[in-house]
Amino acid sequence: MSLRGFTRRRLLGAAGAGTALVGAGVAGGYLAGSAAEPDPPAQAIVPFRGVHQAGIITPAQDRLHFVALDVTATGPILRQAVVALLKRWTTAAERMTAGAEAAPGGAVNRNPAAPPTDTGEALDLPAASLTLTFGVGGSLLDKLGIPRPAALADLPPFQRDQLDPALSGGDLCIQACADDPQVAVHAVRNLVRMGFGTTAVRWSQLGFGRTSSTSTTQQTHRNLFGFKDGTNNLKAEDTAALDEHVWAAPTDGAAWMAGGTYLVARRIRMHVETWDRTSLTEQESLTGRTKGTGAPMGATDEFAPVDLGSPLIADDAHIRLASASSLGGVRILRRGYNFVDGSDGAGHLDAGLFFLAFMRDPQRQFVPMQSALARHDRMMEYIEHTGSAVFACPAGLGDGAYWGQSLLEA
Amino acid sequence: MSLRGFTRRRLLGAAGAGTALVGAGVAGGYLAGSAAEPDPPAQAIVPFRGVHQAGIITPAQDRLHFVALDVTATGPILRQAVVALLKRWTTAAERMTAGAEAAPGGAVNRNPAAPPTDTGEALDLPAASLTLTFGVGGSLLDKLGIPRPAALADLPPFQRDQLDPALSGGDLCIQACADDPQVAVHAVRNLVRMGFGTTAVRWSQLGFGRTSSTSTTQQTHRNLFGFKDGTNNLKAEDTAALDEHVWAAPTDGAAWMAGGTYLVARRIRMHVETWDRTSLTEQESLTGRTKGTGAPMGATDEFAPVDLGSPLIADDAHIRLASASSLGGVRILRRGYNFVDGSDGAGHLDAGLFFLAFMRDPQRQFVPMQSALARHDRMMEYIEHTGSAVFACPAGLGDGAYWGQSLLEA
Ligand code: HEM
Ligand code: HEM
Ligand code: HEM
Ligand code: HEM
Repeated sequence: MSLRGFTRRRLLGAAGAGTALVGAGVAGGYLAGSAAEPDPPAQAIVPFRGVHQAGIITPAQDRLHFVALDVTATGPILRQAVVALLKRWTTAAERMTAGAEAAPGGAVNRNPAAPPTDTGEALDLPAASLTLTFGVGGSLLDKLGIPRPAALADLPPFQRDQLDPALSGGDLCIQACADDPQVAVHAVRNLVRMGFGTTAVRWSQLGFGRTSSTSTTQQTHRNLFGFKDGTNNLKAEDTAALDEHVWAAPTDGAAWMAGGTYLVARRIRMHVETWDRTSLTEQESLTGRTKGTGAPMGATDEFAPVDLGSPLIADDAHIRLASASSLGGVRILRRGYNFVDGSDGAGHLDAGLFFLAFMRDPQRQFVPMQSALARHDRMMEYIEHTGSAVFACPAGLGDGAYWGQSLLEA
Repeated sequence: MSLRGFTRRRLLGAAGAGTALVGAGVAGGYLAGSAAEPDPPAQAIVPFRGVHQAGIITPAQDRLHFVALDVTATGPILRQAVVALLKRWTTAAERMTAGAEAAPGGAVNRNPAAPPTDTGEALDLPAASLTLTFGVGGSLLDKLGIPRPAALADLPPFQRDQLDPALSGGDLCIQACADDPQVAVHAVRNLVRMGFGTTAVRWSQLGFGRTSSTSTTQQTHRNLFGFKDGTNNLKAEDTAALDEHVWAAPTDGAAWMAGGTYLVARRIRMHVETWDRTSLTEQESLTGRTKGTGAPMGATDEFAPVDLGSPLIADDAHIRLASASSLGGVRILRRGYNFVDGSDGAGHLDAGLFFLAFMRDPQRQFVPMQSALARHDRMMEYIEHTGSAVFACPAGLGDGAYWGQSLLEA
């Protein structure tokens, strides 16, 4: 189908769907929100293989299904079982990111006496920019008797941590990002299913709203505090900064991680009820940016450089405490998602930010940053870290390679 | 902005976003899924007022945030507090469905010493076809001393019910549907927030994937069993059938419900792990339809008429048991959503179908249908009803009217 045909179908479909079409701007007497940034078309495919894994600097898709798994296989077969599974996962993951079913034959396989090899719920859906990003936890290296890179040490406890072990850790992780939640859910489900007998789900998290943007081609989206999130993020286009702060170098200690990166995941519950009772002044002051435009306090443009010399940015403002200049040059690539996991049974939303960040060394980057925030950030009064995990995400795959090969065949 | 401008921005943005664009069909050697149906543009606005409430026969949007609330106000002020809240909710709901903030001034209100009147996370997002549909539970009528219509009686227990009271019931409900989850979540959060002191959240549910389609302009989507769901649903275009099965008539008993409808919500957990081990033959046989095309067993076209005389459709097939002809002509309008609420802590996905259905009288429509399914449906081996609620959704609002006015000023 040509691009032109695709476009026409969208418009015809919309008109036929019986909903009113209005120009952006003033609608029904109200000032409507400005137009959202255009999403890539549903047919978009992100290449699975490459120098780095997809899903890290890929412009953040809008939906997330993240799963952490434990390896249940034990004893002498452990390594072999893990290798066999990672090979099968790689084949299925590559197929699904191309918009295909998990296995040939798939949902309506030729042998109807057997269970279908694909669960079917994405059968009519295109790839929707699906990426599947794979990581290994320190606990798996321990089980395999492989020494951990220093960067993969467990995180220290931080002040005010409220971590739930059931939402933390994991031997393996898969991050599925796509512009359609059903596509992300389908991918995780089929990989989980292939793992039965070797792995079991430890915890999983759905998210939406792609805080933070990871590319200068994207608009900045808002977190559930209503603030633009990702303005001063590392961006895909700044390759020098990515080499410095995100991609592990061959000289970093673990040869199998060269070209890879480390993922820190933190499930951060946000007490939105309390936040919503806070004045705009307080909200802006503790963030260090204005709510409307996202500009630094005192500026009007979202992307105006942050002047940390300005007294308008409070000493304990989030963007001061987390800034490279307060932290001796440390930066990270954030790639978080908003979440709402229903309600907490006490009348509050169970909502927050599923913080995902990629970096070269969590010990030297995340640890000082989160230590500063946990100690001084006034935002901590409104949030609670309820889950935590660190994974090593090796480099991207060349032709024929499988997930984890650099580790398991080192 | 003109339609043309909108279209061009989408395409430019997509090309700039660095993702590969491929025609639908064959991609990278795989047969990619067929193109998804076009979504309405993000700017689409569904009118808030009308003969019926929006969000019932509106072509099902892709995302859901559903909330059930209890009224916490008590004593002599109860009725007055509810009326005051429903008036404020109506104003805010109408604004938000038009793409505006919950209140003028909103997220960056003029008085920065006060909390913002809108929580801000939808500030740059367009309306995304948001609908807000309002319902009243029988328990609220009891509290108000208003007799319940017969149609709003509590549901009887059904065989194999596994209902969790914390996921059931509620004095009020709000169903938010939109093509962007952040828009649906924002709307519910701001209404919940306005309710503090009068109402508290009892339970809430997020969903995606719009099983079932409610309009002939929509493609049929798939549930998490991988089957097309909604093929033989009542559709918005069949107004005679809607008058017969969905809209309450003035002569139905409760004058305040004329033009309204009753909503049955059932949270149905699906044991996808067990299902995924079942043969295709068994899956198709117990459904009564094929998995690939969704056609009735023995036919090839999804919309081929169902021939219940055919021995290919098993005696206990879901579509036979739930059919109008097995149930003396009873039909309902289904409008459910898929859900994944993370995992259950035992290695399974906590996933399923959040079944929503609108009908003229649950006692005469849902009760016989679910009784038949609970007793005979082989699908019951793979599912579990974990939540249940019934709400009366009054007719749509004329100019100046507020949610619940026909009830509270009767
Ligand atoms: C719910 C929790 C959090 C919220 C609501 C939040 C919100 C924000 C906001 C609104 C900004 C300004 C816009 C931007 O540049 O992206 C920001 C910046 C930033 N945040 Fe957070 N954040 C949270 C947690 C964290 C955590 C846990 C870390 C790391 C430990 C972190 C690190 C950063 C960094 C590095 C910046 C950029 C600072 C700069 O301008 O250089 N944030 N955050
Ligand atoms: C750190 C602890 C907590 C904070 C900061 C907090 C904050 C809030 C805030 C600001 C509201 C809105 C209140 C209003 O507008 O009237 C609220 C509502 C509510 N909270 Fe909490 N809360 C906390 C703990 C709890 C606990 C432990 C429970 C019950 C076990 C609870 C139950 C409720 C209920 C039922 C509502 C909504 C209904 C109402 O306003 O009466 N909260 N909470
Ligand atoms: C997880 C639970 C359920 C699943 C997976 C499911 C799935 C399906 C599927 C695949 C169809 C065939 C396609 C279609 O016409 O939509 C169908 C039809 C139908 N279902 Fe369900 N269903 C479930 C629960 C229910 C419940 C609880 C009810 C009502 C009590 C119900 C009522 C119907 C009706 C009325 C039809 C149309 C039958 C006809 O052809 O006339 N379903 N369902
Ligand atoms: C009605 C009850 C249950 C059914 C029908 C059921 C079904 C299943 C199925 C079919 C699988 C895939 C098994 C495989 O491929 O090897 C599975 C996996 C699993 N189930 Fe269940 N299950 C049930 C109850 C439970 C309970 C009560 C627990 C633990 C408290 C549990 C823990 C697990 C775990 C950890 C896995 C994944 C790991 C593995 O395969 O070893 N299940 N379940």
